[in-house]
Amino acid sequence: MILLRREVGDVLRDHRQAQGRTLREISATAAVSLGYLSEVERGEKEASSELLASICAALNLPMSRMLSDVSVRAARSEAISALVTLPVGQRSDTLVRASAA
Amino acid sequence: MILLRREVGDVLRDHRQAQGRTLREISATAAVSLGYLSEVERGEKEASSELLASICAALNLPMSRMLSDVSVRAARSEAISALVTLPVGQRSDTLVRASAA
Repeated sequence: MILLRREVGDVLRDHRQAQGRTLREISATAAVSLGYLSEVERGEKEASSELLASICAALNLPMSRMLSDVSVRAARSEAISALVTLPVGQRSDTLVRASAA
Repeated sequence: MILLRREVGDVLRDHRQAQGRTLREISATAAVSLGYLSEVERGEKEASSELLASICAALNLPMSRMLSDVSVRAARSEAISALVTLPVGQRSDTLVRASAA
């Protein structure tokens, strides 16, 4: 099962780290506690829609871009899940497509 | 501010209606109360990640597709929000791009 909060957390952390910014900086800008932001990034807490908008704004990350990144990650997970239901002989082509996605 | 729960609710309702299915059918399949599903569709309740996965499964809607639909909607809202900050003379081209997105 694909859990949205995990994928969202990974995407938020990836963007923050790519910008070389700390949890402390983003939590201050987004007006959310550092501990909560850390739990959101680790996929342990469901962020409310308002909080998510605030974190994206603090990262200068359009919500559409965040969601499109999450969609790509979900598509990869779906391809891998589909793979394990295939007979072994049919897996290699599917794996190549999933890796290229 | 773009609120994820509203965009998600709209996308879930659009897919359900496009399939000609009722709230009752989806709520039974997804094992969620009809009232709760209705609130999720109206963007009034934040669905947990587990519940969202369950609703998408009931709709035979891959999570990646749902998220990509939500991303497109968010991009349109962002384009329209950007528009209102532009001087009037620069709005028409931007509006055309937003409508085409």
